[in-house]
Amino acid sequence: MAGANYKQRLRDIDNTGFGPNSSIEGGRLVNPDGSNNLRKRGIPIWERTSIYHTLLRMSRPMFFLAIFLFYTTANFFYATMYLLAGMENLTGVDSGRGWFNNFMEAFFFSCQTLTTVGYGRVAPTGLLANIIASSESLLGILSFALATGLIYGRFSRPRAYLVFSPNILVSPFRDGKALMLRVATYKNNHLTDVEAQMTLALHVKENDKVVTKFYPLPLDISKINSLALSWTIVHKIDEDSPLFHYTRALVAETKMEVIVNIKAFDDHFSNIVQQRTSYSWTQVIYGAKFLPMFERAESGAYTILALDKINEHILVPMPEEV
Amino acid sequence: MAGANYKQRLRDIDNTGFGPNSSIEGGRLVNPDGSNNLRKRGIPIWERTSIYHTLLRMSRPMFFLAIFLFYTTANFFYATMYLLAGMENLTGVDSGRGWFNNFMEAFFFSCQTLTTVGYGRVAPTGLLANIIASSESLLGILSFALATGLIYGRFSRPRAYLVFSPNILVSPFRDGKALMLRVATYKNNHLTDVEAQMTLALHVKENDKVVTKFYPLPLDISKINSLALSWTIVHKIDEDSPLFHYTRALVAETKMEVIVNIKAFDDHFSNIVQQRTSYSWTQVIYGAKFLPMFERAESGAYTILALDKINEHILVPMPEEV
Amino acid sequence: MAGANYKQRLRDIDNTGFGPNSSIEGGRLVNPDGSNNLRKRGIPIWERTSIYHTLLRMSRPMFFLAIFLFYTTANFFYATMYLLAGMENLTGVDSGRGWFNNFMEAFFFSCQTLTTVGYGRVAPTGLLANIIASSESLLGILSFALATGLIYGRFSRPRAYLVFSPNILVSPFRDGKALMLRVATYKNNHLTDVEAQMTLALHVKENDKVVTKFYPLPLDISKINSLALSWTIVHKIDEDSPLFHYTRALVAETKMEVIVNIKAFDDHFSNIVQQRTSYSWTQVIYGAKFLPMFERAESGAYTILALDKINEHILVPMPEEV
Amino acid sequence: MAGANYKQRLRDIDNTGFGPNSSIEGGRLVNPDGSNNLRKRGIPIWERTSIYHTLLRMSRPMFFLAIFLFYTTANFFYATMYLLAGMENLTGVDSGRGWFNNFMEAFFFSCQTLTTVGYGRVAPTGLLANIIASSESLLGILSFALATGLIYGRFSRPRAYLVFSPNILVSPFRDGKALMLRVATYKNNHLTDVEAQMTLALHVKENDKVVTKFYPLPLDISKINSLALSWTIVHKIDEDSPLFHYTRALVAETKMEVIVNIKAFDDHFSNIVQQRTSYSWTQVIYGAKFLPMFERAESGAYTILALDKINEHILVPMPEEV
Repeated sequence: MAGANYKQRLRDIDNTGFGPNSSIEGGRLVNPDGSNNLRKRGIPIWERTSIYHTLLRMSRPMFFLAIFLFYTTANFFYATMYLLAGMENLTGVDSGRGWFNNFMEAFFFSCQTLTTVGYGRVAPTGLLANIIASSESLLGILSFALATGLIYGRFSRPRAYLVFSPNILVSPFRDGKALMLRVATYKNNHLTDVEAQMTLALHVKENDKVVTKFYPLPLDISKINSLALSWTIVHKIDEDSPLFHYTRALVAETKMEVIVNIKAFDDHFSNIVQQRTSYSWTQVIYGAKFLPMFERAESGAYTILALDKINEHILVPMPEEV
Repeated sequence: MAGANYKQRLRDIDNTGFGPNSSIEGGRLVNPDGSNNLRKRGIPIWERTSIYHTLLRMSRPMFFLAIFLFYTTANFFYATMYLLAGMENLTGVDSGRGWFNNFMEAFFFSCQTLTTVGYGRVAPTGLLANIIASSESLLGILSFALATGLIYGRFSRPRAYLVFSPNILVSPFRDGKALMLRVATYKNNHLTDVEAQMTLALHVKENDKVVTKFYPLPLDISKINSLALSWTIVHKIDEDSPLFHYTRALVAETKMEVIVNIKAFDDHFSNIVQQRTSYSWTQVIYGAKFLPMFERAESGAYTILALDKINEHILVPMPEEV
Repeated sequence: MAGANYKQRLRDIDNTGFGPNSSIEGGRLVNPDGSNNLRKRGIPIWERTSIYHTLLRMSRPMFFLAIFLFYTTANFFYATMYLLAGMENLTGVDSGRGWFNNFMEAFFFSCQTLTTVGYGRVAPTGLLANIIASSESLLGILSFALATGLIYGRFSRPRAYLVFSPNILVSPFRDGKALMLRVATYKNNHLTDVEAQMTLALHVKENDKVVTKFYPLPLDISKINSLALSWTIVHKIDEDSPLFHYTRALVAETKMEVIVNIKAFDDHFSNIVQQRTSYSWTQVIYGAKFLPMFERAESGAYTILALDKINEHILVPMPEEV
Repeated sequence: MAGANYKQRLRDIDNTGFGPNSSIEGGRLVNPDGSNNLRKRGIPIWERTSIYHTLLRMSRPMFFLAIFLFYTTANFFYATMYLLAGMENLTGVDSGRGWFNNFMEAFFFSCQTLTTVGYGRVAPTGLLANIIASSESLLGILSFALATGLIYGRFSRPRAYLVFSPNILVSPFRDGKALMLRVATYKNNHLTDVEAQMTLALHVKENDKVVTKFYPLPLDISKINSLALSWTIVHKIDEDSPLFHYTRALVAETKMEVIVNIKAFDDHFSNIVQQRTSYSWTQVIYGAKFLPMFERAESGAYTILALDKINEHILVPMPEEV
């Protein structure tokens, strides 16, 4: 395993949150979306899951589906309750028109109660039907309260809205070479005090066991004042870099993983936002450089940032290969 | 009192928020859940309690019970008001069917008003009943607003979701020994820039009075970039440690308390979260070390963190006892 | 003016936000509640006032009064609209019973529309009444939305809940003297990383003009980890202090103002909270020291913090007066 | 191009987020309102726009217009649906009075359903009309939830409420000259820990190409404790300044742009707030100084800040011109 070659020259760091023995080879540590490739066990799922955050992070269609399912299920449940309590306790219903009609009337009465629209064409009488209806309208306003919180939470959750280049390049840089990736914001948001952190994960042999070691990769510029256009994050591969001996031939062999973390202050949310990604060795392109992704508008009045060019690069010969 | 032996070699700190004379022996300073073991007096309870935060921090069943009690109480109150105003002012009620029927109709009419469902089978007429109903529907929307805020606040309150090992161990460490505890996140949350702080509280004799002194315990690693798996927090017991002379025999005698504070940035909430705990001398295990609590999945595709093993340890001989 | 005596020995600071020429004598700079004693002019009041924050900061009774006034005014306005549109357009109303009865019916119908309770005993027919009712129910849900936001905002607004001692003392301290005030949290909240800042404002003569100069007062301890009990904030009056020559006789003459700012992290809100206060010379007690305000419970199980003793002090002779 | 003269003496910074080749002359980089003069391309508009933030940042009249349009459109749509389902399925409607009457009844029934007011004079019967009404009342409460979130979000969005002087002055300063602008808060808010940052953008010739270079402009005071009155932000033009050779004659020729960023902690929001602005060369006044914008009230009881005087200045001769 080639990664092991680097061992003697590298100061590994222990503060990544992943222990050194997390590492039988295979399987990345961090997924491309920034989440940890990790499962928790040993306590029940409802204790180790935050329902609120699950609802907050699910996709928009899934979220509306979840609301729709809740609405339908609750109404089915309450419709059954009204039927069991007896249709004669709902005024305005002609209960002699068959069970389907009864169920339908009960179901839509339930809808009207849950949403508190309460037309009153159908209305409860008697103790039992009234108790059921009272509990349903309370459930209605509470679940509405919950929906309000969720919808606000979903919208207002601070996010960095960053797009990373799908590839990480090894490019010529000054008189040597460097590891480069590119990042830009894709929404109409504005980040300031933007900090980047790059960590290399290598699977190295230590006392005959393969363990994962982590190395910070110092950046050419690690903090910028403002991220208006794109930012090419650069780790210069010099003698101090754990990747000093890295060559085209070693890319497939090394199976390295590069974890990138961006932290910034967002003007929209007036909050700190953070986004992570990870590059596995399959995403490395050795000998390439990024092409510019912004240009001045023809009128000269403003700048255009072309987000579809985030990964646009050309292959170039590397200095050691010429 | 053995703790007093340490006095001459220790630089105590005064900035814990607990004064030195807070200390007649007995009773811990910080509870295991991180709250201060403290009661405030001298101003009325409603001035020294934040109702909002009490509602925010109570358990889920208690919270829903509180809502149910409010709902029932408010409806009892308003039902009485409608009865006093006269049932003839509620249309749709046959008021000749006895007081129970009247109260029931008033009660459920109140429910329909408070939740703003308003079927209209029963409706107010006349000045008095209308004034009561108007005030109730206003109360209804205001309490609904409050419930919305509370439910959102409960869900969105930034929390660290940390689980601490129930015991704190004195373990062999390098060529000496160390105080160790373990911490992990138990929800699907992700902490970054995690900082730990450990403070030792000792009851020592000073001028014939027993006072509590506080000592910071420096940590082997006090800040990690990311808490993905578990973190073993380590205070090395060397010559600079206030616990340098601490032995198995002194555990029960010293009655020390160790306060641990974790502060981190949480990705979910995009906010700083904080959690504290405290270990009393009864939680100390002298001569033990933690066993790993994570492993690679058999497929090799991801890592498994076993949260039920947070406290798993084996007893080991200590260097000075061999 | 005695304050002017200090001029030659003091390095004044310009970064308080108050300019040096803000200072014809009389009138404090900062009010005891921490707000600036300042009025803004030159732009219309609606541009220089944040309605939201005014509603957020007003007292609870005032806030509910504001809601009640809005509710009543809106209903009066809409009742008039329905009357103007013609009572024959509201079904269920016997319009022949006089103008008061008509207004009452219109008013309560408006209540039922604004709160969306909509019983339907009275309902609109025809284009005009329906347009008015539609606009009112939209206004209803929007103002309800606003109320929800305000109530949540009021409750969740991060506040430090600090109580300051009403007096600031000049006390004996070590082998000299010090300026001391005391602070504690009065709610069930818990502050960590608490920082204090003390600034002295003196009106001094400069080139025959009286100007206000600001001096930072260094603190004996300016940051504590946790504010569990009370904190006595101490500025030692030594040769480096702008108050080195301050004596009992100069208290009334100097007319100094001491501005105190506390910044901390609050566990409840997981947010930074801040509170300011200001002491004018009339609040200075020369030659006194604070008495302890906490004690161990008799059972020894917990500590009691007596908030009514925040200002409890005894008069003591000062070193230079003995 | 005169700006190019500065090239040899200036250390340019690359961390502004704008690349050096963003610079065919013409068009400013940052708009006076602080937004970047930039358009994003290459991904669909719905992916590069945050609807929530667009709704959050639009002006108040536009926002209410958007709500009104949504309300009207939704009701038109549902009215059409009810008509298509057949008016005989809405009870309480005399469907023989022509299509306009039918549409009106359907439209207002839709209003009553969407706002959940539900009088019940008109009510749905049958499967189809009930399904439509159920979906509409669900849409109603969901859009209400959304409106609540938006209204809260609009109000509670942390903002600095800063007003900048429309001009940036070159003024005499100490024994030389300085670049000066003035800033003040115009609402009843209170900023603490206020930091300013000034960046100069110059279009300079480099290898025959005109590129934009960025230079940090060090400030005389870059951080103040509290922004109570106004703050004059000063960059001293000395030998270390990129503007050392700047003269009255060069103002028009240089076409410089000065970007100013203010970051502070706001007491209202208990949050960090930030505001940017930019001055183009057309806003530079060479040889002028600001006049005071605050004064003591006649009674001496408080200070008056005159916000309409934020830009008040007099022309003065510059040292090199005397």
